[in-house]
Amino acid sequence: MNKNIKVPMAALVRLTTYLRCLNEMKQSNVQTISSSDIEDATGINAAQFRKDLSYFGEFGKPGVGYNIDELHDTIARILKVDEERPVILIGAGNLGSALLGYSGLPENNFRIVGVFDNDRHKIGYKLWDNEIYDISTIKARNAKIGAKIAILTVPVKSAQDVVDDLIESGISLILNFAPVPIHVSKDIMVRNVCFIQELTILSYHLKS
Amino acid sequence: MNKNIKVPMAALVRLTTYLRCLNEMKQSNVQTISSSDIEDATGINAAQFRKDLSYFGEFGKPGVGYNIDELHDTIARILKVDEERPVILIGAGNLGSALLGYSGLPENNFRIVGVFDNDRHKIGYKLWDNEIYDISTIKARNAKIGAKIAILTVPVKSAQDVVDDLIESGISLILNFAPVPIHVSKDIMVRNVCFIQELTILSYHLKS
Repeated sequence: MNKNIKVPMAALVRLTTYLRCLNEMKQSNVQTISSSDIEDATGINAAQFRKDLSYFGEFGKPGVGYNIDELHDTIARILKVDEERPVILIGAGNLGSALLGYSGLPENNFRIVGVFDNDRHKIGYKLWDNEIYDISTIKARNAKIGAKIAILTVPVKSAQDVVDDLIESGISLILNFAPVPIHVSKDIMVRNVCFIQELTILSYHLKS
Repeated sequence: MNKNIKVPMAALVRLTTYLRCLNEMKQSNVQTISSSDIEDATGINAAQFRKDLSYFGEFGKPGVGYNIDELHDTIARILKVDEERPVILIGAGNLGSALLGYSGLPENNFRIVGVFDNDRHKIGYKLWDNEIYDISTIKARNAKIGAKIAILTVPVKSAQDVVDDLIESGISLILNFAPVPIHVSKDIMVRNVCFIQELTILSYHLKS
């Protein structure tokens, strides 16, 4: 398998979809699947799935299909989520707390290694098992932690300021839950979680 | 404008992206934008944007561009989010609480009109301004409320049971935050919010 292929964004999104789907399938007793099972589960057509995989080598056996565990591990390797990644969480509010308690993070090799907030009433207290640190200490702390990925669950009004601090602290990848556009230089990557889009898609299908 | 065109899912996702982007632009002082501004803001190429709009009529003026407010309202109409939609929330935990307090919902014409949980320690108490109702009363309550859309923020183990109750109560569109696949019949639509996918895409771009 050639791990150095640069995967285009659209293919990357599809690969994460396959991985998610395989994660779910691993919990069942099924061991082998076909590309049309993938189509049923993801909505991405079987030919596209086979084409996406073909860039990385030969997988599956004709007439037999794909071994779920093998396919999962291969895609995890392609996506580089076969090793644990340290992540810091900024914002110890309701959403931050919900994310911190979410088992999907460790199950997918993401480990929250630091929680930061600017609220004096929260700093020093624990959120789940994590001490809440003062955001003003992030640069010194992340020099030790070495996280590159941050999850941002702060209010709209502080989002941009926090991002500037994060970048100074060595963070280059940001998952933004704040419903506001964030401006960063080209070497920093931001992905926005926007469930309003999903609600809009649902609402569009409302029968009148 | 022909409102009865059936928009394919991929175009629908793009339209919600344009709308999100226009929502943000409305907050600035800019009044007119070009299709290449849209490309810069969304990553969707300008030709695709013009093609997506062309299905619905003629918009924008050559050499002048699009009026942001007009374009916003047009896409909101196409997506049918120009009117308020009642939504119920199932699960009064951390995530449910975070969503209930999220200003993006009313700003996008989604109004949470009922909050339900099965926890005796929560039922009857208030979450923000909303009384938490017993989930076992949902059928009777939604007969009055008439919501078709539900947001699901319950633990994995209760997700499927809750969905079955929701469908019996007249819900046909479900936004699922529980990290578990949900099985529904073809006339029910489920969209899953999966931020692990976004984290995976970020993590892939980690420079080693």
